[in-house]
Amino acid sequence: MSELRRDPILRRWVIMAPERRGDLAARRPEPLPADRPGPCPFCPGNESLNPEEIAIAPDGRGWGVRVTPDKRPLLRIEGDPDRRGAGMFDVMNAIGAHELVADTAEHELAWADFSVAYMVRLLGVYRARAADLRRDPRFRHVFVLKNHGAVWSRYRHAHSHLIATPFTPKRLEEEIAGARDYHRMRERCVFCDQLTEELRAGTRIVAHNREFVTFTPFASEYPYEMWIAPRAHAADFGALADASLPPLAELLVDALARLRTALGDPPYSVVLHAGPLDGSDRAEFHWHWEIVPHLGYELGMEWATGIFSNPVPPEDAAHQLLAARPSAA
Amino acid sequence: MSELRRDPILRRWVIMAPERRGDLAARRPEPLPADRPGPCPFCPGNESLNPEEIAIAPDGRGWGVRVTPDKRPLLRIEGDPDRRGAGMFDVMNAIGAHELVADTAEHELAWADFSVAYMVRLLGVYRARAADLRRDPRFRHVFVLKNHGAVWSRYRHAHSHLIATPFTPKRLEEEIAGARDYHRMRERCVFCDQLTEELRAGTRIVAHNREFVTFTPFASEYPYEMWIAPRAHAADFGALADASLPPLAELLVDALARLRTALGDPPYSVVLHAGPLDGSDRAEFHWHWEIVPHLGYELGMEWATGIFSNPVPPEDAAHQLLAARPSAA
Repeated sequence: MSELRRDPILRRWVIMAPERRGDLAARRPEPLPADRPGPCPFCPGNESLNPEEIAIAPDGRGWGVRVTPDKRPLLRIEGDPDRRGAGMFDVMNAIGAHELVADTAEHELAWADFSVAYMVRLLGVYRARAADLRRDPRFRHVFVLKNHGAVWSRYRHAHSHLIATPFTPKRLEEEIAGARDYHRMRERCVFCDQLTEELRAGTRIVAHNREFVTFTPFASEYPYEMWIAPRAHAADFGALADASLPPLAELLVDALARLRTALGDPPYSVVLHAGPLDGSDRAEFHWHWEIVPHLGYELGMEWATGIFSNPVPPEDAAHQLLAARPSAA
Repeated sequence: MSELRRDPILRRWVIMAPERRGDLAARRPEPLPADRPGPCPFCPGNESLNPEEIAIAPDGRGWGVRVTPDKRPLLRIEGDPDRRGAGMFDVMNAIGAHELVADTAEHELAWADFSVAYMVRLLGVYRARAADLRRDPRFRHVFVLKNHGAVWSRYRHAHSHLIATPFTPKRLEEEIAGARDYHRMRERCVFCDQLTEELRAGTRIVAHNREFVTFTPFASEYPYEMWIAPRAHAADFGALADASLPPLAELLVDALARLRTALGDPPYSVVLHAGPLDGSDRAEFHWHWEIVPHLGYELGMEWATGIFSNPVPPEDAAHQLLAARPSAA
């Protein structure tokens, strides 16, 4: 029997519709397009195609992680926001940072196949870039975004994005607004409370270690959606201690390996949501990674109404992901 | 040069990124899957496959429009919401109405090919169903949703959905919240003001007649997004006068025919957003139809951050749609 569940943070009702589960199979997005012609701009030896190096993290064999400006940035680093009106509307220049991260020198290596040590290196780069970008007073938020196997991806080389915005994107604004209202009522962090509740219920926990928990949230909008969050309250990902990198890396690699085993290497997106760069909402917000596979389900409805319908209750997703013993592809 | 535009209703910043326009071509979703085996449950003669008829609108040759309960409803008509807590979470039964509308007895006939007179008949059915569903005190909102050529569609037969919800979906809640805040500040409807501003600017108007305006909104989230709204303030679609049906039908058919001519029959969704069924927000909300083609662009970013990036500024979209003289497929 389907039910409606309300996300305590986004305050959105989600239809849990397990009787629609059969729909998932037929609706996979297309496979990854073939490599574009020409040399890969992220493979070793082709660095001249991306000369402006922002950061590297050598791994002994080569440059390892390499960060460069995105060649076709969504947001440009130069200039002032120049906030202005246009008739009744608000406009500003599309400034910000859009950095492209070659996750590894290897052309196609999935995060699921990273060693924990290598994932620690990559997370260290994200942390350092977040700390650097926060020094720019024009920026409000930094995101890390990884798309795997997506049809809309421009490159096949294993890569991710670092994006700093001069505004609070709507999705994060909703999370912050939900967290603020909850905090005002209860003087507690809604993310902390949800973690406690998820650990108590136990049926949606996929993995955990001393510092972090991987779970499929109660009102998951998407089938097999997973969150990884620190047990201890923290809004600032840039302040993550060195000692916390390995347990986080462990759960990230584990979650993606489980997703691959359970669902046969679906395309997915991973994003880091962290608190505002100016340190506000420190008590209310709680950084976390969100992982969602792209199973091509019900896009019309979501766009049209904002009603999400999820054919896989997160307990079932957790059960399946728990049973999915990670293995190499 | 790209810029950031803020939607005055949803209060969301959208990146206008015309330099990314070339990306659109390669990213079309797959074509419609072949018909499923077996007789079409919406073609004349197969009515026994959908016996529980809710409404019909005969067109002289047969039943014309035919409304039946959806066989696999997202929301079920029977029962009580039974709102309850589950630990810290909120749950209710997934009740509501989910009706399937066979738009026409013809198996595959696009709205773009409807006569205005036939579209009037279909709009009349939506209006009547909305008026009927509002009598059920369990329901807060009614939506009309039409998906054309979508890969996730279950049927090829020309059809649409009528959905009544016992809650306010997030997307509509955002529109209502934006409209309320604007009204509190100015004692004016933000939709009315946007219409005035769009008509004044003129560069985003696609079509208009004495009662309605079709335009590509200033901060369009999606390339070629169009809205059709009444010039006169109205929150209740169910109260639309008979005399207003033909000019609305004219603009709906016109908009979809232009979309097909301009973009080569892309998949699209059309949705009706109207005010709450209980009559609240009557002064603040303004019903409208939204049309968006599915061009498969930047889904990862939208999901991850709520940042929309649109490679076709709505002035360009309007220009192209204006030039797209509707013609048969």
